Amino acid sequence: MTTAPEKIAGILGGMGPEATVDLMRRIIAHTDARDDIDHVRCIVDNNPKVPSRIKALLEGGGEDPGPCMADMARKLEAWGADFLCIACNTAHNYYPSVRNAVRIPVLHMVELTVQAVARQRPDVKKLGIMASPAVRLTHLYEEPCRRFGIQAVYASPMQEQRLLGVIKDIKAGHTGDSVRAAFGEIVSDVKEQGAQGIAIACTELGIIGGDYGIFSVDAADVLARTIVEMAKGTTAL
Amino acid sequence: MTTAPEKIAGILGGMGPEATVDLMRRIIAHTDARDDIDHVRCIVDNNPKVPSRIKALLEGGGEDPGPCMADMARKLEAWGADFLCIACNTAHNYYPSVRNAVRIPVLHMVELTVQAVARQRPDVKKLGIMASPAVRLTHLYEEPCRRFGIQAVYASPMQEQRLLGVIKDIKAGHTGDSVRAAFGEIVSDVKEQGAQGIAIACTELGIIGGDYGIFSVDAADVLARTIVEMAKGTTAL
Repeated sequence: MTTAPEKIAGILGGMGPEATVDLMRRIIAHTDARDDIDHVRCIVDNNPKVPSRIKALLEGGGEDPGPCMADMARKLEAWGADFLCIACNTAHNYYPSVRNAVRIPVLHMVELTVQAVARQRPDVKKLGIMASPAVRLTHLYEEPCRRFGIQAVYASPMQEQRLLGVIKDIKAGHTGDSVRAAFGEIVSDVKEQGAQGIAIACTELGIIGGDYGIFSVDAADVLARTIVEMAKGTTAL
Repeated sequence: MTTAPEKIAGILGGMGPEATVDLMRRIIAHTDARDDIDHVRCIVDNNPKVPSRIKALLEGGGEDPGPCMADMARKLEAWGADFLCIACNTAHNYYPSVRNAVRIPVLHMVELTVQAVARQRPDVKKLGIMASPAVRLTHLYEEPCRRFGIQAVYASPMQEQRLLGVIKDIKAGHTGDSVRAAFGEIVSDVKEQGAQGIAIACTELGIIGGDYGIFSVDAADVLARTIVEMAKGTTAL
């Protein structure tokens, strides 16, 4: 029996750079490896110089990140990537620019995440999206959720500000009990709105991890697992 | 005043993949950044499929990793890297193959590490090399040390076996007190041989960190700092 050669993953990274390192760490963790050679080859453009997504999407007037991301995608394809992914939830607003720039498949972290919820827990009809306000304001989860008959719910305005504070705390290296407690209360807030599960749609929130007392999927984790499966040929798009 | 554009770092990685992720994390940590854009762009080939260095160097009969690493270097140069580095001590045995394959500079982690010792502590004349046996057996640190009038010393045979055990423990995720205590005793062993400082020449050993009660430099840390300085143009080779 011959085995098909493993596929090479191309990662559009740098948005921010820590999220890319986090995704690479998760890819390694999700690989059943006894030696180096069992790991997945990833070619990575950890490019923190991509124009600000926040400026372009929310503040207005910023340079369009689309062409830069399309260029990164073309270069990764030319280099030998068999499929691509984008290591950032918010940056998926530019998914069409990336998708149209290449012939190889481009994984969609948001769609994969909602799909994972629907497959693992078909009873979840209201899903709390734990993310920075940019994800809510750009309606990134709405369309994929709708397709699975799921309603996306978000932290209420006051709690959303706290959530942003939690994200900034974690970015600054604070992951202690008070940060975890604050996050727990924000989760309670979306539970009170009827959420039967949550999606962790922000790398920083994935770092504190833990048991939230509710069904949860981590978008970065779903993406990492899919990358390993795609590379090993155990799944196809 | 105009500022020169930042340089792009190319990383030959995957030897192993965790060491590459660790180096990327250190590059981020050593960058004085207020926002994503302040970080260094790194293009990374995290390629765990490079032929085994251990097989080729120590066990014999394995495929030569040189041509594979040269090919990785050429591709990173063609992609737009302004300089290269190799995220693994042992793999520096193939530094000449990489160096001869490209026109751009290639940082030499081992030379940079010994240079850092000589600059920071000119009184250190005996340096303990804390690494896997492959580093000692291939005499990787001997020539750079000689150039600075430094003698490289290694853990004695019994302690070297323990050191390998410590490295394997850390790889398996064990970083508790007993592992730290074992490492502390190995450091004492090289101190008894007259070492006035140690070089951490193995990614795993850098993970436990801590105060060794002796002057120390971490090779991965020296490399990460140099990458940031090279990219920002505050140093040149």
